[in-house]
Amino acid sequence: MADLNAQLEDLVLANRILAHENVVDGFGHVSLRHPERPDRFFMSRSRSPELVTPDDIMEFDLDCNPIDQRGRLMYGERAIHGAIFKARSDVGSVVHNHALEIIPYSVTRSPMRQVIHTAGGMGKQIPVWDIRDDFGDTDMLVRNLKQGQSLARTLGDNAAVLMRGHGCAVVGETVRDAVRIAVYLMINARLQTEAMRHGEVTFLSEGEILATAKMSASPLASDRIWEYWAYRTGYTKR
Amino acid sequence: MADLNAQLEDLVLANRILAHENVVDGFGHVSLRHPERPDRFFMSRSRSPELVTPDDIMEFDLDCNPIDQRGRLMYGERAIHGAIFKARSDVGSVVHNHALEIIPYSVTRSPMRQVIHTAGGMGKQIPVWDIRDDFGDTDMLVRNLKQGQSLARTLGDNAAVLMRGHGCAVVGETVRDAVRIAVYLMINARLQTEAMRHGEVTFLSEGEILATAKMSASPLASDRIWEYWAYRTGYTKR
Amino acid sequence: MADLNAQLEDLVLANRILAHENVVDGFGHVSLRHPERPDRFFMSRSRSPELVTPDDIMEFDLDCNPIDQRGRLMYGERAIHGAIFKARSDVGSVVHNHALEIIPYSVTRSPMRQVIHTAGGMGKQIPVWDIRDDFGDTDMLVRNLKQGQSLARTLGDNAAVLMRGHGCAVVGETVRDAVRIAVYLMINARLQTEAMRHGEVTFLSEGEILATAKMSASPLASDRIWEYWAYRTGYTKR
Amino acid sequence: MADLNAQLEDLVLANRILAHENVVDGFGHVSLRHPERPDRFFMSRSRSPELVTPDDIMEFDLDCNPIDQRGRLMYGERAIHGAIFKARSDVGSVVHNHALEIIPYSVTRSPMRQVIHTAGGMGKQIPVWDIRDDFGDTDMLVRNLKQGQSLARTLGDNAAVLMRGHGCAVVGETVRDAVRIAVYLMINARLQTEAMRHGEVTFLSEGEILATAKMSASPLASDRIWEYWAYRTGYTKR
Repeated sequence: MADLNAQLEDLVLANRILAHENVVDGFGHVSLRHPERPDRFFMSRSRSPELVTPDDIMEFDLDCNPIDQRGRLMYGERAIHGAIFKARSDVGSVVHNHALEIIPYSVTRSPMRQVIHTAGGMGKQIPVWDIRDDFGDTDMLVRNLKQGQSLARTLGDNAAVLMRGHGCAVVGETVRDAVRIAVYLMINARLQTEAMRHGEVTFLSEGEILATAKMSASPLASDRIWEYWAYRTGYTKR
Repeated sequence: MADLNAQLEDLVLANRILAHENVVDGFGHVSLRHPERPDRFFMSRSRSPELVTPDDIMEFDLDCNPIDQRGRLMYGERAIHGAIFKARSDVGSVVHNHALEIIPYSVTRSPMRQVIHTAGGMGKQIPVWDIRDDFGDTDMLVRNLKQGQSLARTLGDNAAVLMRGHGCAVVGETVRDAVRIAVYLMINARLQTEAMRHGEVTFLSEGEILATAKMSASPLASDRIWEYWAYRTGYTKR
Repeated sequence: MADLNAQLEDLVLANRILAHENVVDGFGHVSLRHPERPDRFFMSRSRSPELVTPDDIMEFDLDCNPIDQRGRLMYGERAIHGAIFKARSDVGSVVHNHALEIIPYSVTRSPMRQVIHTAGGMGKQIPVWDIRDDFGDTDMLVRNLKQGQSLARTLGDNAAVLMRGHGCAVVGETVRDAVRIAVYLMINARLQTEAMRHGEVTFLSEGEILATAKMSASPLASDRIWEYWAYRTGYTKR
Repeated sequence: MADLNAQLEDLVLANRILAHENVVDGFGHVSLRHPERPDRFFMSRSRSPELVTPDDIMEFDLDCNPIDQRGRLMYGERAIHGAIFKARSDVGSVVHNHALEIIPYSVTRSPMRQVIHTAGGMGKQIPVWDIRDDFGDTDMLVRNLKQGQSLARTLGDNAAVLMRGHGCAVVGETVRDAVRIAVYLMINARLQTEAMRHGEVTFLSEGEILATAKMSASPLASDRIWEYWAYRTGYTKR
């Protein structure tokens, strides 16, 4: 239970961090797979991430049914999370966001590639999913498990998948991993866009992509940045 | 009266939100059609939106005459609001702003188009109005009903109209609708500009434009973002 | 004296506003011609504008000699102000700044032109002064009256002059005019740079340039924006 | 000892300033050579710069061994500092950062050059070091003295060296010098990128590069900007 409580604290803080670092605005969400019951996950009720408190956290099964709804409103797109948790047993947390720096890569033919070592964990490719391919004209939201499964298929075994004209889903072993990759995926997108102005760009090699992924997930890097982001939210008191 | 009071509260908050989200700076304004008297509307006295309080709200007829001026200074451009309320019975609120991201589309031949689902409600086209066409050299302000009517004609039945070298007018059924569309029109402009750097852009289809308009106006989306923006202003206490 | 005191208050506030609106960082300064003695002007001792208080204000003659130095350190570049006040009897205030948006226009062949009505007062052209033309290799600062006079000659009867690889000097009849033009000159620069990405830009006509100058200096526009900027600094209490 | 204490205070403040001015995020570090023992240097324990307090400062020899570790976690990349202090007896402080504006110059063929006088001290060239040249695929971090020495060789007698896909190292005689150059190197990068959009850029001449370096290090410029940055952190009380 100690571990569960610590992870739920991380989940609340993750909401605040994603908002403070401008990865999410009023929309977007982050989930945690239940550490003791892999067929369950946690996520806030329908609320802007910046406002999420421990009381807002709800529990779901992997079909995205609430365990104990108590009348609370739920995110319309929780199928993103359920479908990915089903497809990827290695994933312990999913972040869904609309970071502005990332959107251009979802609507053009520029593939995202790793420019900087701190984006370690984003992997060597980020596929793009277009909801129109399987589902025609929609309101762009992932509203059911079928759509979530289609998204999860395009994600494959990558760390993130872009959603055309919408945003992305980022996964990690832990909440801290998913948040860290989501923040630096956004920063990497900005850097790549700026670098491309100057001409041909040297991206990280495959060996560097693997080595920086390991480095970024190490406690030396991961704990330092989490402490920093936590204090910046003001939610964690100095 | 309960409804009127709630809508007037939204109007004050709308001023604060537009300022906090950088849609307006010291200039710009937002209006509300009287919910019980469609031939009247409310708007602040001449004041920067960030500073507007309930006491600043004035009532006008659709010719933009004040009902009870009590010596208060009025916005020079209230004809934007009166003329649009006259021409569009479906409109309950008008936002006028100079958001920086939008101006480039008013002075070049790039048409604004929907890039992201959150801009639902901006519609499939945003016409550009050039005051010089009908009125020659002016100080660019919409200073009388004739100019307001010309602007309203170019607006047509769209959700927004750009004003060359000046800004835009955005309309909505409610204050919350107009504010939400105004904020995401600005974000969409930034995204479109960034995406165009990368080459050909995939915009939303007509079906998606319609479906995202409906989705964005739904309580699930609309209430969540309004709550978020309200808290961010600091005017609504957490 | 009442008028002098009010203008000195504006001068202190102008320092704070220019810092808060990111027109100046730790460097840059703003001056006020003495309203009763046109052969004198006021300016802060050498200090970052964000930190200036009434006690920091010093008085100078137009050769930039301090009237009552009392050991206070003075800005190295006060010749910008003295020389312009000498050359331009119509000028009551000078702002010198390094706003980032403006610098690119000082080191390339792009001329700055008015894109938006709120930049009223910037005039139809902004000349570029290169200190190297008259003085060869220097540390780029305007360190003496000769250099100031050279700058003033290039300024001519315009509202601003760019300084190559350095920044600009902006003038106005009053402190509020000079500050307002300085802020919107910066915003106009950003807008022009963004608009030029999209192709050919429609700038304001000569008639519009004149009419928007008059409009921007009118109390309706000028007082509203000053009140807004003043509150934003936190120095003026709400 | 008075001097040592004052310099250690500057070191703590330097951490805060670099964070507040967005030169570093959660990563990056700054060091001080011991003013009395040139074979030693000071640096924080492994911590985000924004959080560093006097208690976090540790002492190292130039092989980067801690003098009195007391179980504290150390930065993985302290070899950047030790190797540069060994190679450059004129250097009293080193800043390592990942400022976003700088990264594009590390992964493309655009050389950084001085655009603005406030970047005085950056020198006439900034070499680029690619860790892959000497060490093949790595996690990009400078993890040992060999890698540090390779970096120091590329730095040569310049004021800064870019690290491909990673960031840069900036040196100065004092902590204040290194911080000032690091901040304005970032600003200069942004200005250069923007100016290049407009066409051919006029950079500073060699004589201007030398003269602005001297000017920027003078007390008039250096003390004013340090006071400003210090207050902005909130760590130094007004």
